[in-house]
Amino acid sequence: MRIDGLQYANWSETIFRQMRDGGLDAVHVTVAYHETFRETVLQLERWNRWFERHPDLILRGSTAADIDHARDTGRTAIFFGAQNPSPIEDDIGLVEILHRLGLRFMQLSYNNQSLLATGCYEAEDPGLTRMGRAVIAEMNRVGLVVDMSHSADRSTLEAAEVSARPIAITHANPAAWHPARRNKSDAVLRAVTARGGMLGFSLYPHHLKDGSACTLDSFCRMIAETADRYGVEHLGIGSDLCQDQPDSVVEWMRVGRWTKDIDYGEGSAAAPGFPPMPDWFRDNRDFGRLAEGLAAVGLSHAEIEGVMGGNWYRFFAANFGPAP
Amino acid sequence: MRIDGLQYANWSETIFRQMRDGGLDAVHVTVAYHETFRETVLQLERWNRWFERHPDLILRGSTAADIDHARDTGRTAIFFGAQNPSPIEDDIGLVEILHRLGLRFMQLSYNNQSLLATGCYEAEDPGLTRMGRAVIAEMNRVGLVVDMSHSADRSTLEAAEVSARPIAITHANPAAWHPARRNKSDAVLRAVTARGGMLGFSLYPHHLKDGSACTLDSFCRMIAETADRYGVEHLGIGSDLCQDQPDSVVEWMRVGRWTKDIDYGEGSAAAPGFPPMPDWFRDNRDFGRLAEGLAAVGLSHAEIEGVMGGNWYRFFAANFGPAP
Repeated sequence: MRIDGLQYANWSETIFRQMRDGGLDAVHVTVAYHETFRETVLQLERWNRWFERHPDLILRGSTAADIDHARDTGRTAIFFGAQNPSPIEDDIGLVEILHRLGLRFMQLSYNNQSLLATGCYEAEDPGLTRMGRAVIAEMNRVGLVVDMSHSADRSTLEAAEVSARPIAITHANPAAWHPARRNKSDAVLRAVTARGGMLGFSLYPHHLKDGSACTLDSFCRMIAETADRYGVEHLGIGSDLCQDQPDSVVEWMRVGRWTKDIDYGEGSAAAPGFPPMPDWFRDNRDFGRLAEGLAAVGLSHAEIEGVMGGNWYRFFAANFGPAP
Repeated sequence: MRIDGLQYANWSETIFRQMRDGGLDAVHVTVAYHETFRETVLQLERWNRWFERHPDLILRGSTAADIDHARDTGRTAIFFGAQNPSPIEDDIGLVEILHRLGLRFMQLSYNNQSLLATGCYEAEDPGLTRMGRAVIAEMNRVGLVVDMSHSADRSTLEAAEVSARPIAITHANPAAWHPARRNKSDAVLRAVTARGGMLGFSLYPHHLKDGSACTLDSFCRMIAETADRYGVEHLGIGSDLCQDQPDSVVEWMRVGRWTKDIDYGEGSAAAPGFPPMPDWFRDNRDFGRLAEGLAAVGLSHAEIEGVMGGNWYRFFAANFGPAP
């Protein structure tokens, strides 16, 4: 079982074939960064076209059972997520609408303050807003997973506590390994995993120790240490792969329509674009290397199966439908 | 089995209870007259609230199997439809999106010219547009039924011919019985029913011979004659019940935002509002009287079962999902 907890590639038949080459049974794909509801629906329409054109490679994922179906038929199940609550605008009723349209993850904030919570680049984090608490309850009701990958610490700790169901950090690494703004503190990782939540390890170079030069060994030792600390059953991959995207897309991710200035986010004026991927993880075809790397640092077969997809599978199975 | 092929009431717990009193297993409800996509989604959000608040009375209908489930649990299954293609705007991708959100019928035009077809109040009917043909193919693909209740004759005949799957006139009567603008010619009824399509008999007084004074006997004799002419298996009820609506709603239906003037549609300056219903069909509680009336004019038990719901049930079962 191989599941990737986050990608935002410039989708194409080439990439869907590479998913098959890499043995991906399921991928959580981003459909919105700053998009309004209508703009998000346009992204879903694009996916409908891809499902129609490539029925031999991909299928729509709604429940964990769709992953089984994908495996049985040699395809990859695609699950939708939003990195910002912008798709629900100011309307809590859109939570159920978007869930019905296939949304399974939604971040409560993306770098900035949102209507729901604070992003990790704000100077102050006042915690969950009134609407944030209401929306978490609604997300819990329908089975839309709270994702706090780009949120600030206090908001994340409150979300973990307020949410009646486990939450996720789909793509980030422990700050103890690499103290990037987007990586997560021990307090956050403990709060999320202690309540059954998941951490997806990111391969985005800004989240890696030594960036693009990070070694597979360093990455896998970090996973082994995180497993020792928080429990291997809460860990998966969330590669944050942005394959074949032009640099204009990383600018959209960072700037959206919220400022007229340039904001480099994790980049800089000297390196404004997407950083090069580590040579041991170029794209979807390299997922097997991660499994090899985890074996090399001593994880058991069962632990590797869990990190490579089994843990996400169980999490999807428990959290993508109405609360029991 | 009792199914109503069209209603647009001012929904309330009272009406949902009256549906139960009338033994309604399923109702096709209108969610858009002139609404844009986003405005239609707001209507779907309202339905989500009603489903959440009244789980003992109603449930969301997606397939005919939901009608069985509704019967087994003493509830009414609610199926969504649009009386105009305004919800898809100029975007064919919204056909699949709205089908996924539960839309099961869509009229190609409502009184006026639309992007797809001509409405029954236009002076000229040039037939299906280029987009109209493309959208019919897409509706056929996903299982969204073409409804031509408010369309003009040529457009309707072309839709019946172009559509690879049967189409419906969810709410109208034969013009031979009562020559109203909205009632349908022999040519239209023959084209629709010859290809497996359905006619739902309307109880909206403007569609009835003698209007609000129409007798149950006259209405049921008309049904018996229509059965003789076109085949009873193609017939159902489409009451067009607009219970508890203020007259501002019939003005919205007629005028939308397409004119600044008043258009009385089937009404007149002297009678601009909703006409009073016949005393034998006040609301959902009176469906049993229709069955009695049909028995009184000589229909068999099996024929009555078909007209009261069995025929719609088979049509729903065959046409609400992807083409086989």
